[in-house]
Amino acid sequence: MPTVRIVTEAELRAVVPLDGEAVACVEQAFVALAGGGVVMPPILRLDIVEAHGEVDVKTAYVPGLDSFAIKISPGFFDNPKLGLPSVNGLMTLFSARTGLLEAVLLDNGFLTDVRTAAAGAVAAKHLARTDARRVAVIGAGVQARLQLDALTLVRPIESATVWARDADKAAAYAAEMTARRGLPVTAAASVAEAVADADIVVLTTPATAPLLMADHLTAGQHVTAMGSDAEHKNELDPAAIRRADLYVADSLSQTRRLGELHHAIAAGLVGADEAFPELGAVVTGAATGRTDPAQITIADLTGTGVQDTAIATLALARADRSGAGSAFES
Amino acid sequence: MPTVRIVTEAELRAVVPLDGEAVACVEQAFVALAGGGVVMPPILRLDIVEAHGEVDVKTAYVPGLDSFAIKISPGFFDNPKLGLPSVNGLMTLFSARTGLLEAVLLDNGFLTDVRTAAAGAVAAKHLARTDARRVAVIGAGVQARLQLDALTLVRPIESATVWARDADKAAAYAAEMTARRGLPVTAAASVAEAVADADIVVLTTPATAPLLMADHLTAGQHVTAMGSDAEHKNELDPAAIRRADLYVADSLSQTRRLGELHHAIAAGLVGADEAFPELGAVVTGAATGRTDPAQITIADLTGTGVQDTAIATLALARADRSGAGSAFES
Repeated sequence: MPTVRIVTEAELRAVVPLDGEAVACVEQAFVALAGGGVVMPPILRLDIVEAHGEVDVKTAYVPGLDSFAIKISPGFFDNPKLGLPSVNGLMTLFSARTGLLEAVLLDNGFLTDVRTAAAGAVAAKHLARTDARRVAVIGAGVQARLQLDALTLVRPIESATVWARDADKAAAYAAEMTARRGLPVTAAASVAEAVADADIVVLTTPATAPLLMADHLTAGQHVTAMGSDAEHKNELDPAAIRRADLYVADSLSQTRRLGELHHAIAAGLVGADEAFPELGAVVTGAATGRTDPAQITIADLTGTGVQDTAIATLALARADRSGAGSAFES
Repeated sequence: MPTVRIVTEAELRAVVPLDGEAVACVEQAFVALAGGGVVMPPILRLDIVEAHGEVDVKTAYVPGLDSFAIKISPGFFDNPKLGLPSVNGLMTLFSARTGLLEAVLLDNGFLTDVRTAAAGAVAAKHLARTDARRVAVIGAGVQARLQLDALTLVRPIESATVWARDADKAAAYAAEMTARRGLPVTAAASVAEAVADADIVVLTTPATAPLLMADHLTAGQHVTAMGSDAEHKNELDPAAIRRADLYVADSLSQTRRLGELHHAIAAGLVGADEAFPELGAVVTGAATGRTDPAQITIADLTGTGVQDTAIATLALARADRSGAGSAFES
């Protein structure tokens, strides 16, 4: 009988903090994606209209990793009315050699939060100026917090500004993150004010119309747009992609369909087949990253199955090392 | 924190035997499928060529059921060389109202075996002569055993014959099933001999070329072909579908693509858009089933996500009732 490890969200939060190893693991996932040999089938999507619910199933096989993850992410948008979170789900991990189930990670979306924030760190590490010190965060949710945490792992961050549609949430974010990071974090009255002096801008909202406009951008800024993972989502003015010196996709086939690039294509500003580098190629040096401190760079992150496989593999390795979780004879 | 029930294969084998309730549950799944409102997305398929492995992910939302299942089925065909089974996997069950994970069923394919055999019982119940007493089973594997078990739940079975490519396996099947069912089960020297006097023929092999030919069929027989669930599989002579008085699909969109019907279409014997009834419509009476004891009927079963959702829902209800499994705060 094979042994399966079951790990709960509380256990995962203890063993998979957002740290340098998590960032390195996601960085290697992007390298694998750029290197070829990755198998990443289209997302399986189940819609349950009556319940205002949807389920995405993502997977990727990454050559060189012993395991592959299958992630199930339900999003049921009436849940808050019931006092429940909208997003839940789990990751399952299988041997890439035998297909045997190795682990069930009952993470309720936590590992997705970590791998998503880690991708922001990878983008900034390879695209932001090395002396980037000031961050602007747009949005005040879970990713707004984790993206700032992630940036402190790769750049000498000294201060941050935040803007959110709900000023109370922005103020709460500023107070909480000032205490958490030991840095001055202040709420701004507008997106323009928030980003005016920023070296790095992170967009973390589910907006469906642009918040950051092309004329907000100033020389030397790096922008990571990580909120858009569906056709209707849009945080960044399509003209900003033309304005930037360098646009980088996590997965070009995905950003053409789901990311900020999708809206630039729809607006006729970018050709549907126009080539842009992917983040993994910038990491390996196969594609050119920032070459001048005055350049404006943009990373468009939609989230990929290779990140899920990478973080789930790391989570199981750490759970094994620390004895976290429960073993089942399946 | 939501509570998730983890149930192992051993526990599931104890609480979900192949019985009348399992057959009724799968019968209702076919009724739901015929009735509309079911959401059954295309299968997600991951191929890992280096390991001779493939993974299928299936799901279906069935209106009226409180939960929906997502089934993950890895098949790694070099596993027997390692002393491991080729097919493994698990089912996960979610609330259809909130998307919260309710159960992880570590069944290693057992529930698929039960729901597949139960579908054979449903097909025979609605298509075989009511006085069907003699069964011919082609193949001598797990489904060959379970399909005979299933038929005894719906017809007054008195004897069976078996044919398999490996005569030793057929002999072992005959001895084992004679003891298990208390019926005479004998091995035949050929498919023709096995089916000559049968009222019900069940095809349970992964054959890629027809085993049961059109001229093997005799008046009054019912044939269930359940081995084909992929484009290259084929147990039944395409001409048999024209020879039969009635052909019934579990899901017509699937049998046109994956079932025996696929080969009849490819052979030009059946039009690609030709209409045939589905099993659920025969169950409800919306489509006509057998109208004469002399008719030849065929059921083409490829396996559907609604069966998975139905059996997983039954499994969780029974596990709850009997206290089987372990509760986790996820």
